[in-house]
Amino acid sequence: MSKIFVDACLGKETAYTPVWMMRQAGRYLPEYMAVRAEAGNFLNLCHNPAKAAEVTIQPLDIVGVDAAILFSDILVIPDEMGMDLSFVKGEGPKFSDPLTSQEDLDRLIGGDEAASKLTYVFETIELLRKQLDERGDEIALIGFTGAPWTLATYMIEGQGTKTYNICKKMMYSNPELLHNILAKVTEVVKLYMEKQIEAGIDVVQIFDSWASAIEPGKYDEFSWKYMVEIADYLKSKYPNVPIIMFPKGVSAFIERGLVYGNFDVFGVDWGTPMAMAKEKLGDKYVLQGNMEPCRLYSKEETTKCVEAIQEIMGTKRHIFNLGHGILPDVPVENAIHFVSECKRVSAKK
Amino acid sequence: MSKIFVDACLGKETAYTPVWMMRQAGRYLPEYMAVRAEAGNFLNLCHNPAKAAEVTIQPLDIVGVDAAILFSDILVIPDEMGMDLSFVKGEGPKFSDPLTSQEDLDRLIGGDEAASKLTYVFETIELLRKQLDERGDEIALIGFTGAPWTLATYMIEGQGTKTYNICKKMMYSNPELLHNILAKVTEVVKLYMEKQIEAGIDVVQIFDSWASAIEPGKYDEFSWKYMVEIADYLKSKYPNVPIIMFPKGVSAFIERGLVYGNFDVFGVDWGTPMAMAKEKLGDKYVLQGNMEPCRLYSKEETTKCVEAIQEIMGTKRHIFNLGHGILPDVPVENAIHFVSECKRVSAKK
Repeated sequence: MSKIFVDACLGKETAYTPVWMMRQAGRYLPEYMAVRAEAGNFLNLCHNPAKAAEVTIQPLDIVGVDAAILFSDILVIPDEMGMDLSFVKGEGPKFSDPLTSQEDLDRLIGGDEAASKLTYVFETIELLRKQLDERGDEIALIGFTGAPWTLATYMIEGQGTKTYNICKKMMYSNPELLHNILAKVTEVVKLYMEKQIEAGIDVVQIFDSWASAIEPGKYDEFSWKYMVEIADYLKSKYPNVPIIMFPKGVSAFIERGLVYGNFDVFGVDWGTPMAMAKEKLGDKYVLQGNMEPCRLYSKEETTKCVEAIQEIMGTKRHIFNLGHGILPDVPVENAIHFVSECKRVSAKK
Repeated sequence: MSKIFVDACLGKETAYTPVWMMRQAGRYLPEYMAVRAEAGNFLNLCHNPAKAAEVTIQPLDIVGVDAAILFSDILVIPDEMGMDLSFVKGEGPKFSDPLTSQEDLDRLIGGDEAASKLTYVFETIELLRKQLDERGDEIALIGFTGAPWTLATYMIEGQGTKTYNICKKMMYSNPELLHNILAKVTEVVKLYMEKQIEAGIDVVQIFDSWASAIEPGKYDEFSWKYMVEIADYLKSKYPNVPIIMFPKGVSAFIERGLVYGNFDVFGVDWGTPMAMAKEKLGDKYVLQGNMEPCRLYSKEETTKCVEAIQEIMGTKRHIFNLGHGILPDVPVENAIHFVSECKRVSAKK
């Protein structure tokens, strides 16, 4: 059965431009909050395949998106490599044991041993595969990972950061150690995504959420090349599984460097004008994006933006999405409005 | 007496490319920490002209920069408009009474009445003018303000924010109120900067630190046009006082929209490749910047970057600076190295 979302990722003609939203299984949905409360907390929810599958499916019926994205967190990887992850209420993720040396890194589990520990993720995918197939609709399932650089920022800083000064001190004064960390994470990511594909995902998305923390001239060396390595590995084994690359905040160097890589789709953040992305990258990649998520506070501003993006992108080589995750205080009806407007403006007459 | 920094701002030939650092009077200097401890806290230091002047002067002798920048804070404006500013240790600035309505805004003092209350700033400048003139060197004094948009984000959110969702909800669902806030702040900023000039500053810098929080298509409407209005007002009265505009994170739309405005210098952040800035804006503005501040962790990486910028910019229409503020844990000797390297590579043979 052909899935409209997978077809669009591969640049094929589709009846309309498919749409999904980053963080669509999230806090703006009362139904999600209910399941999360049952699970106890966010990390428990990630570890519970039945409940993780349940929240993954929710936005399909409530909001009407064309793809489901696995409910999980990017930090399960360092957690299973042996770091001590917790989520502190109001403060976000914390590792009590950030990496400061080669010895710290050597203590972490790597390769297949680490990837194999993420069984709850693969079980969630297997459940989802079954549930989606039973529905009989053409909904695609997206699996995902954090980029090695983005994961490394948390592993080195021990938490989210405004300045990234600990990892950047390492970047400029001990780049060998940073590369060793990135290489070890890259190995785990490759095998983790291979196992996600084997478990049943249709599409891979790589989130480089903190791409913009690296100066333009160093981005390839410390982030992009590792993602290219991951894509090459997966494509050599699964050439028909599309890979979406989403590096946030890289518009300043979109025309340099980012044009190489075995990715099918490039996720455009809301800070990048879609016309510029199309001009610089549209021939190389299908483009995904990029409505500013805060437009969802107003239906009128949502419609205006969807129409403007449609005007630029036309009806092919495009996937509608937000340019970053949906925020918790967005009214559900406005999210529904966004999705239906995307389908309305792009439907082939 | 001709000041090298002022000459460079106006595009004149200088013996070398002048250099200063954003946040050069700051926590990386033990001498600054000592004065701040005497003052009790950050806000007291801003309110104390003798001590504020003392820390403004410190980096001239310690680090060797070519310009002093007034020690103050951008939030003294909303504070004197009647909002309740405090600095919470480890959390940054807070307003206990954020703006939510036209009534909240109407309660604030505006125009000359608000600007006139910033006497401690003007006294600091008068002291500095005297001290700098007595030194007899050619050091310029930079005065500054936050951009209306950047100030408004704090006034509406009540504090720093990662998502700006409260101001952006206002932007998309009640733009009239946001414009009313911006217009009232703009009036105070105009008069505040006029009084700074009258008190003795040589150069104006406008910081739009949160420029990147606005989507490209809305930036002119909600930020840039207000700064153009401020520049037009100041230039009509003080045509020889250079104005530096520093909008952080706007590289995606540097070629569109930002080419109009009565500014002399454009501050380039570290996320924008200098070659791109030169190509897009170099004819219109003298460019300031833009070493990634974390390069200061390594003398070798500092030298490489200074040489690369010099290679691009040559010896005119450029001012050396960091592409954002210096961080507190940078060794002082590395800051000294940066400044001396800038002078070395740009000295006319």
